[in-house]
Amino acid sequence: MEQDADTLIADMGARARAAATALAAMPTARKADGLRAAAAAICADAETILAANARDVEAGAANGLSGALLDRLRLDPARLEGAAKGVEAVAALADPVGAVIDSSERPNGLRLSRVRVPIGVIGIIYESRPNVTADAAALCMMSGNAAILRGGSEAAHSNRAIHAAFSRGLTDAGLPADAAQLVPTTDRAAVGAMLKADGAIDLIVPRGGKSLVARVQEEARVPVLAHLDGICHLYIDRAADPEMAVKLAVNAKMRRTGICGATETLLVDRAFADPAKILAALGDTGCELRGDADIRAIEPRTVPASAEDWDTEYLDSILSVALVDGVEGAMAHIARHSSHHTDAIVTEAADTAERFLNGVDSAIVMWNASTQFADGGEFGLGAEIGIATGRLHARGPVALEGLTTYKWVVRGTGQARP
Amino acid sequence: MEQDADTLIADMGARARAAATALAAMPTARKADGLRAAAAAICADAETILAANARDVEAGAANGLSGALLDRLRLDPARLEGAAKGVEAVAALADPVGAVIDSSERPNGLRLSRVRVPIGVIGIIYESRPNVTADAAALCMMSGNAAILRGGSEAAHSNRAIHAAFSRGLTDAGLPADAAQLVPTTDRAAVGAMLKADGAIDLIVPRGGKSLVARVQEEARVPVLAHLDGICHLYIDRAADPEMAVKLAVNAKMRRTGICGATETLLVDRAFADPAKILAALGDTGCELRGDADIRAIEPRTVPASAEDWDTEYLDSILSVALVDGVEGAMAHIARHSSHHTDAIVTEAADTAERFLNGVDSAIVMWNASTQFADGGEFGLGAEIGIATGRLHARGPVALEGLTTYKWVVRGTGQARP
Repeated sequence: MEQDADTLIADMGARARAAATALAAMPTARKADGLRAAAAAICADAETILAANARDVEAGAANGLSGALLDRLRLDPARLEGAAKGVEAVAALADPVGAVIDSSERPNGLRLSRVRVPIGVIGIIYESRPNVTADAAALCMMSGNAAILRGGSEAAHSNRAIHAAFSRGLTDAGLPADAAQLVPTTDRAAVGAMLKADGAIDLIVPRGGKSLVARVQEEARVPVLAHLDGICHLYIDRAADPEMAVKLAVNAKMRRTGICGATETLLVDRAFADPAKILAALGDTGCELRGDADIRAIEPRTVPASAEDWDTEYLDSILSVALVDGVEGAMAHIARHSSHHTDAIVTEAADTAERFLNGVDSAIVMWNASTQFADGGEFGLGAEIGIATGRLHARGPVALEGLTTYKWVVRGTGQARP
Repeated sequence: MEQDADTLIADMGARARAAATALAAMPTARKADGLRAAAAAICADAETILAANARDVEAGAANGLSGALLDRLRLDPARLEGAAKGVEAVAALADPVGAVIDSSERPNGLRLSRVRVPIGVIGIIYESRPNVTADAAALCMMSGNAAILRGGSEAAHSNRAIHAAFSRGLTDAGLPADAAQLVPTTDRAAVGAMLKADGAIDLIVPRGGKSLVARVQEEARVPVLAHLDGICHLYIDRAADPEMAVKLAVNAKMRRTGICGATETLLVDRAFADPAKILAALGDTGCELRGDADIRAIEPRTVPASAEDWDTEYLDSILSVALVDGVEGAMAHIARHSSHHTDAIVTEAADTAERFLNGVDSAIVMWNASTQFADGGEFGLGAEIGIATGRLHARGPVALEGLTTYKWVVRGTGQARP
């Protein structure tokens, strides 16, 4: 079975490489036409896709999937239309391929430029959301890459139906169907084969919960673009505007608690005048506060924090709170405990803000804004394949440009090297 | 011993991280002053360093090191001065840290920018050239990174002496000595510990022969920036200028045969008028030509090529030669056999050249220039830490910019996400 999975992925990889070669040289308009045709095919197949999805939801309920998982799995006409519109929106994004990053001319007359090119073959490993099938395929293709999609077993029928429509749209528009292939088995060995397929797959993007990302990061031989945790911090400086501090603390924690940009730890400068109002406002929203005796003295609803709290991504209405000694204390805490996703400062002191923005080593650093803005759409990228907390290639929200690399193009007139 | 190596590297990594944090925030002038002080200390310690090097060379000769290896190992006053001047040259390069890649303002007033920051801690694993100790440390530090250097056992005394001088220069200039640490043992377990030290080391750069690079790429859990092979191609199109074709073929192969940018395979369009002159000129230089009966019919000194020849990096006066059907045939051969380092076309037909430059998927593609130009210095980068053939982060010659990454800096005025 293991061998079968390796053979399967090697074969899909070879076909993906051929499609990637075609996509790399394809004009923007043809890629966009293909995606619009794929979106139209998804709408045309709505009945079939929703029926397939109903089978998945029924099986999931019978297998005891939780309500949250069933909700992620479930499609309805509005969600499916949203998925198709998402594909159309990607087709309207600016194409990064072919853009000249920089260029120069050498004294010997050689003209150099760095030109954006697709990465090649991208493997997407995801869980229960079937709309990722269309969304991830669209982002890969618009940036000139071929996609190998491996969705969760619980969404197998939905994914097959969406992929069948997507493929038909591509071929109707004259694009290679191998540009977006769906792994036909939900056997877990296929994931293992993808993770070690260096040479066949150039990049893996996991889309799902922490256990999926952890497995991918642990096992992969292929480079991975992902974040494991979003342990985001909001620091309230002594020079913070008190009203803004309350507003941002409540928004950063409570607007949506389940997203990776939600704040998990609030750091408050010991010299900040009125911490009680912030903690009371948070407590009033129903947020559980965890802290030490100092914090309990400020807000009596606080429960004691344990050592693990500072390294925990709650994704829930829970917030760890600590007093720190100014911006240097905040930065020291963040250096120890942040997952380097998004960390923010609230202050009216520009020099303190700049110290924080320069000194905090995270993919996203913010001044006087809610950490919940950590999102490709909010950043104006039009979409995102994910948020990366690794240090190489692309960091933070990643959209089309992050799915490209570059090559050096050298134009001469017969220069030999002396 | 394995455990000792892990502990050693974890400890060095922690000290490197602290130094990296200091370097990341350090003004350009202070980094440059530190490097100039390090260069001066190397010159001041010349006698000690040359004596240490003499011990290494003597031991190497007694252990039967080849002449080529002994030559790489050997320092003399001129070479040592060259190493010091190299460090000074790096100090004069433009500092990439802090550069704003792009910026935008969102409709809600959030101001976004992507700012270059150092990668963090970089591990350099190298072989017999002791000058890498100073050269690699300088490149890492000028780009704001801390370096962990692990040189070859055959150069242990030389590396220690150079590192001692370099460190003293740094501390004299008020920089942290931990910015450039030398692994104190030549035990191979230390290399293994570095390769799996993800979290402590952010990037590994191997500098040495193919077996070192292969081991690093095979074992590393930490991302690696490297190239394994330089199987470079020169394609002579039907529309090539015949004189330029002869000149570039001889230069691309024979100027220096031992560098990664040397051409290893010559592809000649079947429709090119005068291949005999090119092959005769190569044969006259003493280059061994390998090809099939067609090539032998053109140049009788040709010996038969085997299947492996097309995938071989000779690094010697040997060239495999094949006839191909135009630019499409050349691109098909290159797609199968290139190591994606550097591939070049010689032609006067601009459209054919653009087809090749777009269609060949290598880190460097060239038109009417010798593949031997594949070099950071020749590209105007001022130096290079290496040439990368991977697809992510940085490709081709890598200097200071390739040793940085970026972060998103978001400046608001109290925006909460709706």
